[in-house]
Amino acid sequence: MHLSELTHPNQLHGLSIFQLQQIARQIREKHLQTVAAIGGHLGPGLGVVELTLALYQTLDLDRDKVIWDVGHQAYPHKLITGRYANFDTLRQKDGVAGYLKRCESKFDHFGAGHASTSISAALGMALARDAKGENYKTVAVIGDGALTGGMALEAINHAGHLPKTNLLVVLNDNEMSISPNVGAIPRYLNKMRLSPPVQFLTDNIEEQMKNMPFSPELSRLKEGMKRLAVPKVGAVFEELGFTYMGPVDGHNLEELIATFKEAHKQTGPVLVHVATVKGKGYAIAEQDQVGYHAQTPFNLATGKAIPSSKPKPPSYSKVFGETLSTLAENDPRILGITAAMATGTGLDIFQKRVPKQYIDVGIAEQHAVTLAAGLACEGMRPVATIYSTFLQRAYDQIVHDVCIQNVPVFFCMDRAGIVGSDGPTHQGMYDIAYLRSIPNMVLMAPKDEAELQRMIVTGINHTQGPIAMRYPRGNGYGVPLMEEGWEELPIGKAEILRQGDDLLLLGYGSMVYPAMQTAEILSEHGIEATVVNARFAKPLDEELILPLAQKIGRVVTLEEGCLQGGFGSAVLESLMDAEVIVPVTRIGVPDILVDHATPDQSKAELGLTPPQMAERILKSFAKQPSVAAI
Amino acid sequence: MHLSELTHPNQLHGLSIFQLQQIARQIREKHLQTVAAIGGHLGPGLGVVELTLALYQTLDLDRDKVIWDVGHQAYPHKLITGRYANFDTLRQKDGVAGYLKRCESKFDHFGAGHASTSISAALGMALARDAKGENYKTVAVIGDGALTGGMALEAINHAGHLPKTNLLVVLNDNEMSISPNVGAIPRYLNKMRLSPPVQFLTDNIEEQMKNMPFSPELSRLKEGMKRLAVPKVGAVFEELGFTYMGPVDGHNLEELIATFKEAHKQTGPVLVHVATVKGKGYAIAEQDQVGYHAQTPFNLATGKAIPSSKPKPPSYSKVFGETLSTLAENDPRILGITAAMATGTGLDIFQKRVPKQYIDVGIAEQHAVTLAAGLACEGMRPVATIYSTFLQRAYDQIVHDVCIQNVPVFFCMDRAGIVGSDGPTHQGMYDIAYLRSIPNMVLMAPKDEAELQRMIVTGINHTQGPIAMRYPRGNGYGVPLMEEGWEELPIGKAEILRQGDDLLLLGYGSMVYPAMQTAEILSEHGIEATVVNARFAKPLDEELILPLAQKIGRVVTLEEGCLQGGFGSAVLESLMDAEVIVPVTRIGVPDILVDHATPDQSKAELGLTPPQMAERILKSFAKQPSVAAI
Repeated sequence: MHLSELTHPNQLHGLSIFQLQQIARQIREKHLQTVAAIGGHLGPGLGVVELTLALYQTLDLDRDKVIWDVGHQAYPHKLITGRYANFDTLRQKDGVAGYLKRCESKFDHFGAGHASTSISAALGMALARDAKGENYKTVAVIGDGALTGGMALEAINHAGHLPKTNLLVVLNDNEMSISPNVGAIPRYLNKMRLSPPVQFLTDNIEEQMKNMPFSPELSRLKEGMKRLAVPKVGAVFEELGFTYMGPVDGHNLEELIATFKEAHKQTGPVLVHVATVKGKGYAIAEQDQVGYHAQTPFNLATGKAIPSSKPKPPSYSKVFGETLSTLAENDPRILGITAAMATGTGLDIFQKRVPKQYIDVGIAEQHAVTLAAGLACEGMRPVATIYSTFLQRAYDQIVHDVCIQNVPVFFCMDRAGIVGSDGPTHQGMYDIAYLRSIPNMVLMAPKDEAELQRMIVTGINHTQGPIAMRYPRGNGYGVPLMEEGWEELPIGKAEILRQGDDLLLLGYGSMVYPAMQTAEILSEHGIEATVVNARFAKPLDEELILPLAQKIGRVVTLEEGCLQGGFGSAVLESLMDAEVIVPVTRIGVPDILVDHATPDQSKAELGLTPPQMAERILKSFAKQPSVAAI
Repeated sequence: MHLSELTHPNQLHGLSIFQLQQIARQIREKHLQTVAAIGGHLGPGLGVVELTLALYQTLDLDRDKVIWDVGHQAYPHKLITGRYANFDTLRQKDGVAGYLKRCESKFDHFGAGHASTSISAALGMALARDAKGENYKTVAVIGDGALTGGMALEAINHAGHLPKTNLLVVLNDNEMSISPNVGAIPRYLNKMRLSPPVQFLTDNIEEQMKNMPFSPELSRLKEGMKRLAVPKVGAVFEELGFTYMGPVDGHNLEELIATFKEAHKQTGPVLVHVATVKGKGYAIAEQDQVGYHAQTPFNLATGKAIPSSKPKPPSYSKVFGETLSTLAENDPRILGITAAMATGTGLDIFQKRVPKQYIDVGIAEQHAVTLAAGLACEGMRPVATIYSTFLQRAYDQIVHDVCIQNVPVFFCMDRAGIVGSDGPTHQGMYDIAYLRSIPNMVLMAPKDEAELQRMIVTGINHTQGPIAMRYPRGNGYGVPLMEEGWEELPIGKAEILRQGDDLLLLGYGSMVYPAMQTAEILSEHGIEATVVNARFAKPLDEELILPLAQKIGRVVTLEEGCLQGGFGSAVLESLMDAEVIVPVTRIGVPDILVDHATPDQSKAELGLTPPQMAERILKSFAKQPSVAAI
């Protein structure tokens, strides 16, 4: 059977090890070819090919439910659950999603994109099953990186307390999150991986022990000896109520199948510890596991990225990493904090240049933020560098530990706005709304990568309280950068970029250049706009904006974020509170989920390109010209 | 020395055990008398009197930093750090706070109110200390309940990985959160408490073992025996990189002091496991640990609450618990989920009436929400009953696991709005803002306890996606309740309560009755208001509101929540998007932190009483009468 004929995972039933190995080879081929051609996640999927096949051979996928954590390792799962034929559309508009989606397949039982959710979801399904008197298996597959996330540990605490609730947790231990793992739990797992395989001892142990001459001083040891007769690895999980099995070689199908079969016979919560190799089967990826976690298109023979046709300006992440490093080299108070996202955020640069001031806490955004609050209390300058979407995980810590106490943590939110092919779980849409309502917070966004540099200085120098900066995924505009000597920006002050009497365009962050382009198009139609780079969503520069709005009589706000409670709403609130009652058009992301596509495709679909925005403004002008404030 | 003379904790240095016992007795007396007279937390503080005194005797509090988790157990700390004299002002306006506050005392090194933050904060301070080359101790004191919160476990994962960073974690194990603890970790701790005290064995063990005749089959046991020669308790913490010490009797000062002294000698992370009794020293509280976690004023001799002068209507929490129970008795799909807050939310009633449908996950709001999502995927009706302020902890789970997948979890947010004496860490100010921006979410709030009943039915019947209800702390209005037969409300439909041509008053939830009272006052001044009970903040009833606003020409919104991005902003957005451009006054909580006080005092300070609101509206009317929409 060829992989292409495998349209239902139950077709794996009855296949021999040899046949499964063939399927495994075909999965790797397809996986590699696809990602090499169009980009996507590489190492995570290659590491779980055998795990997926072995697990699915022991399950009835018409009844049993497998919940994959994060989802970037679920390409093998997708390839054997009906998505082989259109796998070439991966991460492209209207194509196969890069993560898991309930609406994409009946085999995607729980959507994912963020880490550490699978055990909670699987336990919920297991409790539902038992409440309904049904009888299927629920399996969570979670990585060792995701296991350090607090909610996964909360779920283990709960599941370990329910000895009658059957739940299988498969721990996919590849010793990595995106970067090598951090923390005591991964170190503990590693220790187990290094333990020699343990054989279960025979039942006649007690008999033998009876005859052993214990001295009085050692008599208390006797009781404990029986415990040693079961594998000593996994003690932490055993103490927490799980039956621990493993470690198992994650690329040995026979061993995997035997272990899963044994696991299915147990009652209560079971953890199977599977040792896998990230990037398995593609030597280049095995050797550079960080670099080949995810890839843009690359040459399969050399592993080298296929260069884009013309050189691109540096990414915001890179400018961020370099600039913060330069500042930190001269200021030991500056600490770069990441939650297992060094490469994505540009902090890998910081790690190399100022290693002593670099802190990776693992996948643990909550801890990252409160740790930063503790550091800030003692006069350090912690820079919590977390994607907009992942900072959601630490919302309460931002409120409770940072803003209520008004301690100067600097939040740098990469991937704010539309993120492209990662899709709805990763869109950075909500940060303006969820941060704006918290007292003491300052919010800013740079119009380009040079302003990003100045805002980094601004954030570092703002010691009166918390401050957050959002900036987009992708490349800057290629504007000149400075190596040092950046000036800070005054808090809450905007800048006027263009003058015009017909319309006030207020752009925030990544929408400032598009606002300028929109103004140029409008100008061709006889409408002259004043364009303001707001710089700060909180505090708004009311001193500048209110008189302008009053004078011009018509306002358009532009933001790359949700319209509910976002930047435009902040403008509305300010105008109305000041009784400047003028028409305001808010342009941004409406109240929908934005699917995976290229950022340009998403922006076009949302009407966020300058021609579309100009057209919308022209239409409303035709209907209702600007008015003096009433 | 009497407690009243103890104004600096370093005065404890050199006191004898007998003198410390006297201080302990005086702390208990003052603690009990104060809480009996004016209310507050009782059991948590009584349990840590000796722990506090012993710990502080071994520290130099001018340099060393103790970070208390939650803070409701910090009354003894407060009594010996300069707040004895004004302790009678506890939890009252401008008085001593019920939790910890950096601005209240230099000995409150990190503010708290929510659980599970202390280890992260203390580790941050420890890292700052080491970076600066300083040399003081940082100590986190955390309860066993708070230890099950994910971020505490994230912090342990990180701290256990830093063998050179000195950090002391004192585990105050009273086997309780507010209710008896849930989960595998508390069960593990309990197992250790029940272990007999362990003596360290002598070093000649290896010598003795050499002479023991191990059979070949048992030879592998030999290696492990040395491990048994150290205390087997604490293995989980030891595996995670901590030096474990304990369990120690938390009411034996000598044992505590000796253990803390020993702990201070260690390097790296140390955990001291202290077994305490919640309510210690007040027999009535020891016997009813749930009931005496916190108290309204009570008779010290009998423990009985002092009845208020006149009978009060039932609390929202009670009506909620009873109503949900009645529904659940007839619908096995309904599950009541709490994160360790059964008594506060009224789910204690549910637990008694429908125990099989009750789920307490421990202090683990993140897990609670994603567990609920898993349950909802399988057709159950999970009701996640979590205070507004604590639901902040699960913001990402609401976005990622519930709203993106559009699964029908019903969120019931008690304590939404002003909470009174608990202060800023507990105010339920942000839920409208942080939930409103998420696609697929429905938001509602009842005007009174009878409407609460109907909204519970509405929430249960809303199976198309997530829905959230907010309701205030405290008592209802005494309106007639129904025992059953409640009708659901149509989603997104408001109701008109009063007609008038001069002004449109839009009230949300707890501000609907005040809106009516405000309308009555305005009427006395010749201004007739239409009053609308909005019921839904999302979706807004635009069909009703927009034409009314257009016709009347002047709008006032009233909400008990933050004005940034809140209900009033939703109204602003709707009006402006529909080009209904009329003056809108948004009344609610401005961009400040609201301190502890009675709810009435807070409302008066915020200008939220009907006379104040009427006055404000009258003033703006004098300046600018209503206008027809432009």
